[in-house]
Amino acid sequence: MENTQDYQDYQDYRAEILGIVRSNASPGIMRNKLEDYHENDLADVFPDLSVAERRKLCRILNLDMLADIFEYIDEKQAAEYLDEMDVRKAAAILSRMETDAVVDVLRMIPKEKRALLLELMDDEARKDMAVIAAFDDEEIGSRMTTNYIEIRENLTVKQAMTELVSQAAKNDNISTIFMVTADHTFYGAMDLKDLITARQDTRLEDLIVTSYPYVYGHELIDDCIEKLKDYSENSIPILDNDNKLLGVITSQSIVDLVDDEMGEDYAMFAGLTAEEDLKEPLKESMKKRLPWLLVLLALGTVVSSVVGVFEQVVSQLTIIMCFQSLILDMAGNVGTQSLAVTIRVLMDESLTGKQKVELVFKEMRIAFSNGAILGILSFLVLGLYIALFKGKTWTFAYAVSGCIGLSLMVAMVISGAVGTLIPLFFKKINIDPAVASGPLITTINDLVAVVAYYGLCGILLIGVLHLAG
Amino acid sequence: MENTQDYQDYQDYRAEILGIVRSNASPGIMRNKLEDYHENDLADVFPDLSVAERRKLCRILNLDMLADIFEYIDEKQAAEYLDEMDVRKAAAILSRMETDAVVDVLRMIPKEKRALLLELMDDEARKDMAVIAAFDDEEIGSRMTTNYIEIRENLTVKQAMTELVSQAAKNDNISTIFMVTADHTFYGAMDLKDLITARQDTRLEDLIVTSYPYVYGHELIDDCIEKLKDYSENSIPILDNDNKLLGVITSQSIVDLVDDEMGEDYAMFAGLTAEEDLKEPLKESMKKRLPWLLVLLALGTVVSSVVGVFEQVVSQLTIIMCFQSLILDMAGNVGTQSLAVTIRVLMDESLTGKQKVELVFKEMRIAFSNGAILGILSFLVLGLYIALFKGKTWTFAYAVSGCIGLSLMVAMVISGAVGTLIPLFFKKINIDPAVASGPLITTINDLVAVVAYYGLCGILLIGVLHLAG
Repeated sequence: MENTQDYQDYQDYRAEILGIVRSNASPGIMRNKLEDYHENDLADVFPDLSVAERRKLCRILNLDMLADIFEYIDEKQAAEYLDEMDVRKAAAILSRMETDAVVDVLRMIPKEKRALLLELMDDEARKDMAVIAAFDDEEIGSRMTTNYIEIRENLTVKQAMTELVSQAAKNDNISTIFMVTADHTFYGAMDLKDLITARQDTRLEDLIVTSYPYVYGHELIDDCIEKLKDYSENSIPILDNDNKLLGVITSQSIVDLVDDEMGEDYAMFAGLTAEEDLKEPLKESMKKRLPWLLVLLALGTVVSSVVGVFEQVVSQLTIIMCFQSLILDMAGNVGTQSLAVTIRVLMDESLTGKQKVELVFKEMRIAFSNGAILGILSFLVLGLYIALFKGKTWTFAYAVSGCIGLSLMVAMVISGAVGTLIPLFFKKINIDPAVASGPLITTINDLVAVVAYYGLCGILLIGVLHLAG
Repeated sequence: MENTQDYQDYQDYRAEILGIVRSNASPGIMRNKLEDYHENDLADVFPDLSVAERRKLCRILNLDMLADIFEYIDEKQAAEYLDEMDVRKAAAILSRMETDAVVDVLRMIPKEKRALLLELMDDEARKDMAVIAAFDDEEIGSRMTTNYIEIRENLTVKQAMTELVSQAAKNDNISTIFMVTADHTFYGAMDLKDLITARQDTRLEDLIVTSYPYVYGHELIDDCIEKLKDYSENSIPILDNDNKLLGVITSQSIVDLVDDEMGEDYAMFAGLTAEEDLKEPLKESMKKRLPWLLVLLALGTVVSSVVGVFEQVVSQLTIIMCFQSLILDMAGNVGTQSLAVTIRVLMDESLTGKQKVELVFKEMRIAFSNGAILGILSFLVLGLYIALFKGKTWTFAYAVSGCIGLSLMVAMVISGAVGTLIPLFFKKINIDPAVASGPLITTINDLVAVVAYYGLCGILLIGVLHLAG
C-alpha cells in the first residue's frame, strides 16, 4: 500500500506545459517543445489557460496536433474553444478529427454556426460524417471511425505496401489492414506485421484472414459488445447491410463502450437514472435520483398498506414487529444478489428457454440452501435472545423465533425467484433488465416477506398457539 | 428493436470449423482452410471436440496459430488441453503465447508438471515470465506483455525500419514503437505510421514523442487504470523503478481490466463477494453469497433490538408500524444512491480534503431537497390515506402523516451523509470503498430511520399529543 503515495505525481506535465505556453520563446522553439508532449496532457491544460493564451497555443501548434488534442477534450468544452477561434481554423481542425468525435462536438454548437462549420469542412470529412450520423446512438455504427487502411484484395505484396504508405499519412489505425473487393465488399483482414515481414514474392492472399470478425453498423451496441470484447483485436470492421466496409471500431472505443455500458448498469442498479460525476449541479443530480425515489415511494406505500392488513396481528403480539425489518432486509438482500447475477448473465450470454428455467431453479436452490442455514441460525439465536432479553418463556421465545426462521427461509426462496424472474421478464419484453434495479427488487420482495412473516405469525402463533403479549 | 433478431447468428463459424476438423481432407488442405478462421472462433470449438479430434487439430495447425488460439481459451481448460498433448509440444506452444496468459495457464497445472514445462520452454519466454511473475496480482506489471518493439533512440530512419522488420516477426504490438537509450532507459515512443511515411533523411528524433505516457510496474491497477483509459493509446509502456522499459500494457488488456474492475464493484455493490457466471456450481455460489448474508443477518439483529426499544410506543399506537418499512426503505434507497455516486467519484478522481467535505455536503443537500419533496408528498397523501381508509379523525391522520413526512426527510438527509461518509472512510483506511455495499448501507440506514421515526412518534404523538389507537 505504500506504493500508492510514491507514484502519485510523477507525471504531472501540466506545470511544465503551462510554463512553456506562458514563456516568451519564439513560436518555432515553443512548437518544438510542445510537440514532445502527449495530446492528452496538452488537452489537460486548456481549461487553465486564458482565452488569449489558448489563442496563442492554437496559433503555435499545427492543425493535425490540434485535431488530436481536441479529441481528448470534453465535447462541451471543445465546442467552446472552437468558438473562440476563426471559423475557418475551427473547420480545419474539425476536418482532421476522428469523425465520431466531430459528431459529438458539433452537437454542442448552435445550429447556425454548425451549418457554417460544416460548409467549411473538407468534402471527405463531411462525407464520413454523414455515414456515421446515419446511425442511431444505440447502434455500433455511431461509434466507428473511418480512419483505417483499406486495400484491394488482388494486389501484390509490393503494391499493397505502396498503398499502405500512401494511406498511412492520413489514417491512424494501421496495425490491421482491411481488404475489399472492387465494389468495396469486405473481403478479409491482414496484420500489418505480416505485410511488413512478408517476402516480395509472397502471395498477398496467403496473408489475408478471410474469416476475420466483423459487425454490422445497425447492430445494437448492447448486442455486440460482448463479441467485440471476446475477439480482443485492435480494430474490427463495420459493414453496411450490403456487406460493404464502412469503418472500424477500435479497441479504444471498446474501452469507452465497456466503461459506459457497465457504468450505466451500475447506476441503474443503485436506483439512479444515469451516472453522475463530481461537478454535477444540484438540479441535475436531483433529476437523476428523484424519478426512482418517487416510484419507490409509491411502491413503499403499497407495502405499507399490506402491512396495515396485519395491524390486528401485531396489536395482539407486538414483539413480532421487532423482527419485521430483519426479514424484509434479508429478503431484499437475497433478491438483490439474484438480480445482480441475472443481469450479468443476461449481458454476457444469450440464453435458451431451458437455460432460463435452469437459472431460476438454480437461484432458488441457492436461496433455499442459504435460507436454511440462516433460518436455523435465526431460530436458535433469536429464541435465546427473546427468552433472555425480552423476559418471555422458552416456549413462547422458540415459537416466535421458529416463525422468524421459517418465514426467513420462505421469503428468501421467493425473493431469489423474484430477483431472477423480473430481469428475465424485462429482457423478454425488450426492456434493459438493469431497470429492475436493486431498490425496486427490494421493495417488491418486502411485500413477499411481509405476507410470509405476518401471515405465518397470525396463523401459527395466534391462530394455533393462542399466544399474546 | 427488430434488428436484434436479424443480426443474431450470421457469424456462427462453429459448425463450419467442426465440419472441416471432422472431414477426411489431407492435413495440408485442412490447414489451409482452418488458417482462414479467427483464433477466437477456433478456440470456441475446442470444448466440442473429442480428445482425439483435439489431438488431430493440434497436429494440423502450426505452433504460432495454436499459441494464438490458446490465448483465447479459458486458463482452466487450456491447462486441460495442454495436458492431453506431448509435453514438448505443450512447452513449445506456451513459449509462443503472451507471457501474462502463460502465467495464468501454468497456475492451473500441477506443480510437478509445471516444473517440467518450464524447463522445456524457450529461454526467452522463461525470462519474460520471471519478469511478470515478480509482480503482485494487484500491480499493473502483472498484466503487461513483453511482446512489443523496442528500438535504440540514436538510429537513422532506415536503421529503425530494418530493426522494426526484424523484430516484427516475433512481436504483435507494432503500431507504437518504444525508444530506449543504451541502458534500456525509456526514452520515448514513435508511431509506426510516422516511421513508415517518413522520408529517409528525416531525423528519427523528430518522430519521437519524448513525453509519451508511461506507468511503473509496481503501481496498483486501481490507481492507474483511469490514467491508462484517458490516454486511449494502443499500448502504454511499463517501467521498473529505475525507468527501464519492461513491457507494455495493450488496450485489449485495458478492456479486460475495466471490465473486471467494474464487474467486481458491481458484484460487491449487490452484496456478492465476487462475480458469478452461469456455470458456477451451487457450492461456489453459496460461498460467494453467504458471507455477506451472515454479516447482514447480524446487523439486522442489531436493528431488530433497536426496534425492540420502541415496542412500547408501537403497542400504544399500532398504526405507526405500518409505515416503518416505507421509511426504512426510502432511507436505504437514498443511502444506496449516495454510495454509488461516491464509489464512482472515488474511482475516477483523487479528491482533496476540501473536495471530500464538499461531496458530503452536496450529497446531504441533494438528500434534503429530495427529502423535502417526498416528505411533503407523504404528509399530504398518507394523511388522506389514514383518514379515509383507516377511519381515523383528520387531526389524528395528519399528526401521524406529519411524523412520517418529517422523519422521512430527516432519515434521508442522514442516509445521504452515511452513504457518502462510509465509503470515504473505507478509502481513507485503504479498504476498497466498494466493500461498503448497497445492502450494508441499507442496514446501517435502517438504524437511523428506526430511531428517527419511532423516536419522533414517541415524543410528538404520544408524549405531546397523547394519541392512542
